[in-house]
Amino acid sequence: MPSEIPLPVPTATGRADGIQPRSLEILRNMGLKRKIMAYDPARVHEVAFWDPAPQGKIVRTGTWASCPDFLDARYPFTALLHQGHIERVLIEDLAKNGTQVSRPWTITRFETNHTNPAYPVEVDLKNLDSNVTETVRAKYLFSGEGARSFVREQLGVQIRHKDPISHVWGVMDGVVRTNFPDIKMKCTIHSDHGSIMVIPREDNMVRLYIQIASSTDADFSPRKTATVEEVQAAAKRIFQPYYCDWDRVEWYSVYPIGQGIADKYTLDHRVFMGGDVCHTHSPKAGQGMNTAFHDAINFAWKMHLVESGFASRDILSTYEVERKFIAETLLNFDNQYAALFSKRPPSASEVDTAHKGDKAESETKNEFVEMFKANCEFTAGFGVAYNGNIFNHSADHPFQHELIIKDSPKLRPGRIMPPSNVTRVVDANVVHLENEIPFNGAFRLFVFAGLGQSPKKGGHQALVDLAEGLSNPKSFYARFGSEDRQRDTHHDSLNPHSRFFSVALTLAARRPEIEISDLPALFQDYSARIYADDKKDIRVLDAKAAAHAKVGLTGEEGAVVVIRPDGHVGVAVRLVPGKGTVEALEGYFREFTNKSDDRQSSSGLGGGVEHVRAQL
Amino acid sequence: MPSEIPLPVPTATGRADGIQPRSLEILRNMGLKRKIMAYDPARVHEVAFWDPAPQGKIVRTGTWASCPDFLDARYPFTALLHQGHIERVLIEDLAKNGTQVSRPWTITRFETNHTNPAYPVEVDLKNLDSNVTETVRAKYLFSGEGARSFVREQLGVQIRHKDPISHVWGVMDGVVRTNFPDIKMKCTIHSDHGSIMVIPREDNMVRLYIQIASSTDADFSPRKTATVEEVQAAAKRIFQPYYCDWDRVEWYSVYPIGQGIADKYTLDHRVFMGGDVCHTHSPKAGQGMNTAFHDAINFAWKMHLVESGFASRDILSTYEVERKFIAETLLNFDNQYAALFSKRPPSASEVDTAHKGDKAESETKNEFVEMFKANCEFTAGFGVAYNGNIFNHSADHPFQHELIIKDSPKLRPGRIMPPSNVTRVVDANVVHLENEIPFNGAFRLFVFAGLGQSPKKGGHQALVDLAEGLSNPKSFYARFGSEDRQRDTHHDSLNPHSRFFSVALTLAARRPEIEISDLPALFQDYSARIYADDKKDIRVLDAKAAAHAKVGLTGEEGAVVVIRPDGHVGVAVRLVPGKGTVEALEGYFREFTNKSDDRQSSSGLGGGVEHVRAQL
Repeated sequence: MPSEIPLPVPTATGRADGIQPRSLEILRNMGLKRKIMAYDPARVHEVAFWDPAPQGKIVRTGTWASCPDFLDARYPFTALLHQGHIERVLIEDLAKNGTQVSRPWTITRFETNHTNPAYPVEVDLKNLDSNVTETVRAKYLFSGEGARSFVREQLGVQIRHKDPISHVWGVMDGVVRTNFPDIKMKCTIHSDHGSIMVIPREDNMVRLYIQIASSTDADFSPRKTATVEEVQAAAKRIFQPYYCDWDRVEWYSVYPIGQGIADKYTLDHRVFMGGDVCHTHSPKAGQGMNTAFHDAINFAWKMHLVESGFASRDILSTYEVERKFIAETLLNFDNQYAALFSKRPPSASEVDTAHKGDKAESETKNEFVEMFKANCEFTAGFGVAYNGNIFNHSADHPFQHELIIKDSPKLRPGRIMPPSNVTRVVDANVVHLENEIPFNGAFRLFVFAGLGQSPKKGGHQALVDLAEGLSNPKSFYARFGSEDRQRDTHHDSLNPHSRFFSVALTLAARRPEIEISDLPALFQDYSARIYADDKKDIRVLDAKAAAHAKVGLTGEEGAVVVIRPDGHVGVAVRLVPGKGTVEALEGYFREFTNKSDDRQSSSGLGGGVEHVRAQL
Repeated sequence: MPSEIPLPVPTATGRADGIQPRSLEILRNMGLKRKIMAYDPARVHEVAFWDPAPQGKIVRTGTWASCPDFLDARYPFTALLHQGHIERVLIEDLAKNGTQVSRPWTITRFETNHTNPAYPVEVDLKNLDSNVTETVRAKYLFSGEGARSFVREQLGVQIRHKDPISHVWGVMDGVVRTNFPDIKMKCTIHSDHGSIMVIPREDNMVRLYIQIASSTDADFSPRKTATVEEVQAAAKRIFQPYYCDWDRVEWYSVYPIGQGIADKYTLDHRVFMGGDVCHTHSPKAGQGMNTAFHDAINFAWKMHLVESGFASRDILSTYEVERKFIAETLLNFDNQYAALFSKRPPSASEVDTAHKGDKAESETKNEFVEMFKANCEFTAGFGVAYNGNIFNHSADHPFQHELIIKDSPKLRPGRIMPPSNVTRVVDANVVHLENEIPFNGAFRLFVFAGLGQSPKKGGHQALVDLAEGLSNPKSFYARFGSEDRQRDTHHDSLNPHSRFFSVALTLAARRPEIEISDLPALFQDYSARIYADDKKDIRVLDAKAAAHAKVGLTGEEGAVVVIRPDGHVGVAVRLVPGKGTVEALEGYFREFTNKSDDRQSSSGLGGGVEHVRAQL
């Protein structure tokens, strides 16, 4: 995303943005995907590569899937949509939740001081319509200003350039009339007359990216530009032997961009930065908005946990650690992505091998295929893999326990949990298990009962012990229980006990075999979050319980998978009878939850369980 | 749907309606499903049966899927939604297409006369706000007034009662607080204290249907009623041993209803009737709105074809024939449905056998299982199977040809075409083949190239001959070509040649093997309707080409499947080199297309093909 001053209304024209497969999953989890898709975005399933052919023409040398089958994505495509539509969906959702976005304001001064310890950040904002400046005090300041950030400049944070070369890009949106066969695909076209990237858009539109200048040019100037007509004439030459005329141009812009990364994302854990403020790169990878989106989400849930008294303040340091690592990975991939195709186009057999996925992996050590797969994973958004830290359990984590699952290829802390379809017991709906707990700031405890658990009464000792351990007033789960004992939880199967935890229980049984009233009371309060693992999955056709198999559980024993509020795996613990499972969970949470704020209550779960039981 | 006077705005409260799986597919085909689903309707996947247990209690005796796997539905559930929301979606779509719905008006007089032969129907309408009456002249009058129809009464059309018993029903919508485990499911509850039907709704609401009186009661009166409190008290008794309290009641109504069917749907093929005007039945089957919806669609496309000069006027007689047959089937099922459960509840093993689908079929002749399957198919909407007539080819059809496919279990004229996923060549999107041509009044020619067709140049003689035959100016396809030769069809891959036909070509090849420019020019004009049959399908895992296999094509030869504008199969013809395929299609269409109106043009396809070719 090129840097822009915020507008009073959503961006009016142009500036399509690509929403990658993983971002679509997150939007679904936030309840926003359907509103995005209502705009009928173009969907990019494959990328086509065109290279120079004799007589100044171009020829297709290969295609590949943007999100091949081996990634197991719910939505295996990139959605291309006018940025204004995406903004509108977000603005409306903010408004629905009571937050109004004010525009057009710009920041003119800020400092962190102790005039008011509860609101340590002082910010001067100038209204661009009235030129009036107001001073506000805030708990935090988050800068998402874009590449030319005032906040970053004021903080004196340096941008390091991975690749010292900067470029001037031209971008043109509109409707073209052409016989170029891949005009509805994402294409990279290299020709004797220059290079173009083609991106399809909604409503028969297309976006063309054209590199206008490079800092390696002899006469380079970052202010070099080109007219609409010049770019159209260049496109005409590049597209030969195909014709390319324009019905209309919707938007055109030229901007310089380099590839860089900020040294720091925060200096004082009060003023934070994210998005293009912290990382810029070529538009080729289509990662700008997605990476910024992840930055914002990562900051949001951590701030929420701190401000609501759940977690200790020092967890905020993981924001920069996690997100800067991803930005660095992104820039490395951006370089490799470019290098990969400047060397030589992939052969058809290589693309074919790469497409076939895991099976082919053992048979070949082809560098191209490996790079292809890693690239797909990354550009689709599934390469976001955080390293071990206080949230992502690893061998270096301060707490270790024999029941913690290690080295599972399916449940890797820092990555997402594999998706699966299950049947919701209460209404027999077939649902996406991983989406059953929405993004609402809570940790998600996905309990898989295991193949050895009988759904009948008395056949689930490990579940009974788990429920008992969690219900113990001193447990991490009960300590952060709801403060309002009188709260009516009858229709709340999401957070009946605590706004910091949601539980979803999946039983390896057919739906008609499961009686919710046979389960421990704690799970009955989550009645709409009990699932039967009874749907077949084409990826694990032979599995007795597909959802269990997809998280690596093929034996008698189950597991409790702790998912961070952003959908990444925190830790997975084996589910066994006795106190061990809760001990292991307790140890994990104790490392970052607030110990000083002793919120535990003698009645355990804020009265939730007792309240419902009393009515039976 | 109980009969109601039309309101000036969408229905404000209550009156949820169930949208069955097949209706959801039709709404998808009309581009309206997403707008319906945006209201988050409740989804009914299973029905639970509760029967009397000792001590005046109830016990669950079984459940079954409302739309089991063997039906191969895209959306295997019934969506339950406030009727006002459904109306709003339809009203907005009408407005988008230039038609405003005027309310509140009622009809006070009508007659068919010849004062103006182009508009033979004279109608007096009274505005219910102003009491002013206006006279309008129309080509047709369609009555969808509901069971107490003025039009039907004026025409003197009789209602025949299949079942002479009529009932008084109470219906209550609201939010309940209960520990009844199936409150989120559709349930039929029989108890020693009476019977109830439970229907879940959006926003935690539930609908209860309670039979208040039956004409078999000694003291029966169709005006018998019950208060909200009486119904709630009755529900409390029936739900024992579970508690059932009400948070709030949103809507409550009592209405008498019988089971009847109109003798005629039209007398003069100008004034037509449909929906509850023609058929009423108990609310149990949840079929009212869906059947009315089908009535309207069936009338709409036929009227369109007549009024636009494509088909001869006598096709309108098929409206009553097709839809009255379905209403009779519906009433028979409604009776059987009731009888099935008054006899005895199904055993678990019976339900199990029925669920397993086709495989189990050969192993058992159990009457219950057969009935179960037929019932599921019908209530899901997939039992709509029209008999042979001028549109639905059969052994009795006036035109016969050796290339017409007969007795295929997968392509049955009068039924829908099985769904399949294919890859759209032009943008590599994975799409629902059967939805790729929307409901726009055109016949759909789904061409399956066959496993013997090579996608490479020269390897598709049958396709070349098909394209040539269709392009012949005298063919059914070209005769009804676009009248506007100058029409710009560059961005129209749906109806590039004629508003009466759309073509979709599916090739048994992988997407990268297909070059659209290798195909005959006619197909190139449908560039966005060319598909690769390269996606795996869990139902035909071993098939070389799944979409071909799902319509029964497993050999070298392909087929042209003619789909009526409403999605039902008209005829399927084998695709062979030479003139035979087009001859067979020609014979089919010649039976009902207009011969007197000689619209054929010497330039064939209205210039479409030539226009595009000229630019190459």
